[in-house]
Amino acid sequence: MPSQTTTPLQTAMPFQTIEPGSPITSLSTPIVVIDEDIMAQNIARVQAYMDKVDLAFRPHIKTHKIPAIARAQIEAGAKGINCQKVSEAEIFADAGFDDILITFNIMGAEKLAHLVALNRRVNLKVTADSAFTINGLAQAFSRDRPLNVQVECDTGGERCGVQTPEQALKLAKLVVSHPELKFVGLMTYPAPGEEKNAEAFLSASLALLDKADIACPCVSYGGSPSLFSAHLVPSATEYRAGTYLYNDRSLIRAGHCKQNDCAMHILATIVARPTPDRAIMDAGSKALTSDLLGFADHGLIIEYPDASITEFSEEHGTIDLSNCIGPRPEIGDMVRIIPNHTCVVSNLFDHVIFHKNNLITKKVEVAARGLVW
Amino acid sequence: MPSQTTTPLQTAMPFQTIEPGSPITSLSTPIVVIDEDIMAQNIARVQAYMDKVDLAFRPHIKTHKIPAIARAQIEAGAKGINCQKVSEAEIFADAGFDDILITFNIMGAEKLAHLVALNRRVNLKVTADSAFTINGLAQAFSRDRPLNVQVECDTGGERCGVQTPEQALKLAKLVVSHPELKFVGLMTYPAPGEEKNAEAFLSASLALLDKADIACPCVSYGGSPSLFSAHLVPSATEYRAGTYLYNDRSLIRAGHCKQNDCAMHILATIVARPTPDRAIMDAGSKALTSDLLGFADHGLIIEYPDASITEFSEEHGTIDLSNCIGPRPEIGDMVRIIPNHTCVVSNLFDHVIFHKNNLITKKVEVAARGLVW
Repeated sequence: MPSQTTTPLQTAMPFQTIEPGSPITSLSTPIVVIDEDIMAQNIARVQAYMDKVDLAFRPHIKTHKIPAIARAQIEAGAKGINCQKVSEAEIFADAGFDDILITFNIMGAEKLAHLVALNRRVNLKVTADSAFTINGLAQAFSRDRPLNVQVECDTGGERCGVQTPEQALKLAKLVVSHPELKFVGLMTYPAPGEEKNAEAFLSASLALLDKADIACPCVSYGGSPSLFSAHLVPSATEYRAGTYLYNDRSLIRAGHCKQNDCAMHILATIVARPTPDRAIMDAGSKALTSDLLGFADHGLIIEYPDASITEFSEEHGTIDLSNCIGPRPEIGDMVRIIPNHTCVVSNLFDHVIFHKNNLITKKVEVAARGLVW
Repeated sequence: MPSQTTTPLQTAMPFQTIEPGSPITSLSTPIVVIDEDIMAQNIARVQAYMDKVDLAFRPHIKTHKIPAIARAQIEAGAKGINCQKVSEAEIFADAGFDDILITFNIMGAEKLAHLVALNRRVNLKVTADSAFTINGLAQAFSRDRPLNVQVECDTGGERCGVQTPEQALKLAKLVVSHPELKFVGLMTYPAPGEEKNAEAFLSASLALLDKADIACPCVSYGGSPSLFSAHLVPSATEYRAGTYLYNDRSLIRAGHCKQNDCAMHILATIVARPTPDRAIMDAGSKALTSDLLGFADHGLIIEYPDASITEFSEEHGTIDLSNCIGPRPEIGDMVRIIPNHTCVVSNLFDHVIFHKNNLITKKVEVAARGLVW
């Protein structure tokens, strides 16, 4: 047993007791800060495009995991939300969202029980790409409250999805054969830039469905990197995207946005300068994750764009300054980092801080953080 | 505003309502399971080595973040615990631990205020590698309750730390010059296999301190990968390690342990088999992180050692089966994964499940998960 404390136990005050109106530099690092104005611009810009090309827009909540932001997306014109897991959808159902698509093959007794309960209180859709998934759903649901099912097609994303239009038809027929289910469309997680191939797959599938007299009210397409190419897939009726909300280094590289369009920064402090070319900051993989997304290093430091975050420990980030021209960071300096990938960062923090012009507006709980089921 | 739900709001029952005695295969995936017997063996094996080579052992809580496990480590003979952040140390102080080393350059008004409060209730030590850090600590603390400080030396780990024994002496003198601080030793985060260089650095530093008449009661060394080489650094008086507790794929590669010594597995379910060579599981970077630690893929699947987890999305893991000889996984199958790196996985789950012989014993909160401050 550990020895006892010398004074009675006392739980410490919480960290990040913020004061609205204070500068974000008053925060303890590392911390995620979100520029409300940039986020609002990102929401408006993408919704305007979707309206222009006449696509229903369904934001993916994985990027923010925060009901209040999904509400802003709906208020801007989005028609519903996209979750990846049942446990996430429950959080958003509790918050009052009624039109939820879960883009996952859901199986397992506990998840199916949750899904049945969820389907009784919201307008729910799920995806499936196998007879195993479809038959499992049919067994769990009942005719009085059938579950809406979309068939997932692999149009180049090389993740889940049937490989041919013929397989899509076969699974649609299987869904139709179960009175506990309702076939409501096709869905794909496409590869960026593969719009032509995807359109060929989807239009061929639609033709087969039409020939079989199976109505297909929705074709759901998606992804932020080539979002502004959505009009190149005329078969699509709906678009799903998440990262566009905050934007990140991967979306700058993809040409989707500029550096100034990135609403999420991670604030970190330089805590050591062991050598002239090495700085250590207090943000590592527990703040930024190890997602490289094809980059050679871990995020872009706004103040020192020639610096490279070369190594992560959990709580340390090692920065190589050897290519820096001009001033280099000193111990105690605060830096702002644009992450390689925003969505994974949202999953690491219980709260994020919102600001306008670098003045804190509020601290918001990341309500669906850590939900993997 | 989103449309209202059709039925009154109702928070769903929690996921993972476990029943002790049930098989771990009854759990919803992805989930972390810990084999209690293997964990106990790992604790005993390393403590026995530390006792044999006469090193005080200070386990790093980053691997588990669970007070009950730290208690088991102390009961086995460890002399105290190692945290990386003030916020983590507070959780363990609340749980009754009295001997805590925080191996970090702590700065910033809020953190220093927490550190002062913490130092009033436990036997606390921190590390520093610059005059900036040391002077900041001195300013925050007071003579009536001075803070114990170790000087961090970079003996090859290339993270924080002074670069020469002369710099170590200079900082030790600076600590001694502040009555608000107490110099209590040297600390290093070494590179595995660099024991000879580290010993040269540390013994030279000790000689300089001795000549300057500065007592150095502790030399803290560390790391799991070359833990069993600790006796090659005779200047060290204390050893810190975390990962040895659960072990992982990186420690199998380092020769520290065998596959059967890995106490942590991630359970996942195969949810799709889009092609003969591709399987998709329901565990991605939100369950296993993207830490590669030099590996080409994301963890070892025990049931299919020839399979390779080639890609992660947040909730999907893509598995390449092309090198699999013999049977391949089917949709619905559960697999066990040894992660590349255990510590980062512990940071993703609010709870982990303990078991003996694959029968659930308990569900335990990861109390210090997500604490970065």
